[in-house]
Amino acid sequence: MLVIGERINATRSSIKSALQNRDCVLIEKEAREQAGAGADYIDVNGGTSPEEELDNMIWLVEVLREAVEQPLCLDSASPGVIEAGLQRHGKARPMVNSISMEKGRHESILPLIKEHNALVVALAMDDSGIPRTAEDRLRVVERIVEAAGEHGVPLSHVYIDPLVMALSADNTSGLLVIEVLCGIRERWPELKTTCGLSNISFGLPNRRLINRTFLAMLMASGLDSAIVDPQDRQLMAAVITGRALAGKDEFCMEYIKAFREERLAV
Amino acid sequence: MLVIGERINATRSSIKSALQNRDCVLIEKEAREQAGAGADYIDVNGGTSPEEELDNMIWLVEVLREAVEQPLCLDSASPGVIEAGLQRHGKARPMVNSISMEKGRHESILPLIKEHNALVVALAMDDSGIPRTAEDRLRVVERIVEAAGEHGVPLSHVYIDPLVMALSADNTSGLLVIEVLCGIRERWPELKTTCGLSNISFGLPNRRLINRTFLAMLMASGLDSAIVDPQDRQLMAAVITGRALAGKDEFCMEYIKAFREERLAV
Repeated sequence: MLVIGERINATRSSIKSALQNRDCVLIEKEAREQAGAGADYIDVNGGTSPEEELDNMIWLVEVLREAVEQPLCLDSASPGVIEAGLQRHGKARPMVNSISMEKGRHESILPLIKEHNALVVALAMDDSGIPRTAEDRLRVVERIVEAAGEHGVPLSHVYIDPLVMALSADNTSGLLVIEVLCGIRERWPELKTTCGLSNISFGLPNRRLINRTFLAMLMASGLDSAIVDPQDRQLMAAVITGRALAGKDEFCMEYIKAFREERLAV
Repeated sequence: MLVIGERINATRSSIKSALQNRDCVLIEKEAREQAGAGADYIDVNGGTSPEEELDNMIWLVEVLREAVEQPLCLDSASPGVIEAGLQRHGKARPMVNSISMEKGRHESILPLIKEHNALVVALAMDDSGIPRTAEDRLRVVERIVEAAGEHGVPLSHVYIDPLVMALSADNTSGLLVIEVLCGIRERWPELKTTCGLSNISFGLPNRRLINRTFLAMLMASGLDSAIVDPQDRQLMAAVITGRALAGKDEFCMEYIKAFREERLAV
């Protein structure tokens, strides 16, 4: 399961001020710590304001491709910002976060995905918003599959995000995500899946317990990737344990290594 | 999800000596603590030796039906021992642990299940042992379903245990259980499921992390019950959180109550 480290995001005040001050020390530190904690991709969101986002992305990519070996997950809704990031990314395969079936998002971004042989996160929503039922979200997924095909992007490069809503607002929010994951596995086994986990626990106490329990549940349903805080040690312990339980850690070698390095301790 | 508390088991040395000394104080304490920690059923295993098991079961049931309100899960392979327990159980619906398709086990126990309107754990194995593949275990489940039907036991009273093997011995042990659970849900949606969890982590370090992560994964696959140590606080926190995430805790009231009572704290 791919771990996408979420910490370099302009919605966090420390990142926002690092962007404003071009403080590459803080940005490099955030990236290295996430890489050290097990992130496979480093998400990069420079959206302090629409005017600054392009320059921020260019600066972030230039700083980070020197700082860490991990590829980046270029996080923006703007095709221009994504293109600038892709052009500067370097050799490893980048990821783009995200497209959806909203007008104007996939038409201009999918050609860039094809050109740069990138991976792409695709949100299960369109111009009518986020569908309320699993079946309706799968209908949007079907349109994403068609759009990827039209642009020559292989399904194995597309990471569907079923979109996680707050459990506190709707008792069935967790089940719905599980249903969408199972539906995708059944109908498009080549497609990949990902999700931004932490919405599930919005409005409830002890959020990290909910997040890591939910992540284990989603791994049982075949989740391929998650956008998380890799510095949450208990969450990463659940990822390492869940990988072994899902049969993806031969002889439990990674699990035992993590234990020896004291990365499984609470 | 039903929690079956596993602590009153003659394989534990403290329970063995409490049985030998007829120490009802220790037995009552073990039962009350498990009930207080959230056990829905209290498993009762008095198998110190074949000669003593019947007397032990009678004594245990008489002690426990006074000590706790929770019904008991009468744990024995012997029809005579189970019958003695069922006759003394009292009003709440008892559970029996377990039958299998091994010769002599289901034929003599299923009539008792019917007569006492009890629940029963059924192991997915027969005289050839534990089948190696999920499909073969589902074939045994099919025969259990037939046997229950022949004896007039409703499927909703039968808790299939898919049988958990050590992950350290076979990388796919976790996945296999998930496959059996999914197969049962698809083919016999009325059937219930349970499992003895802790085998999964045999031979690996930090076993409780594996057990609770696996439990969350199984809850996502529809597990209805588990035989666990309710005094493992982190495991019970995973149960409470998993119930909410599986849509079984309206408005997350139980989760919030557990938080307020500090039962979710690590």
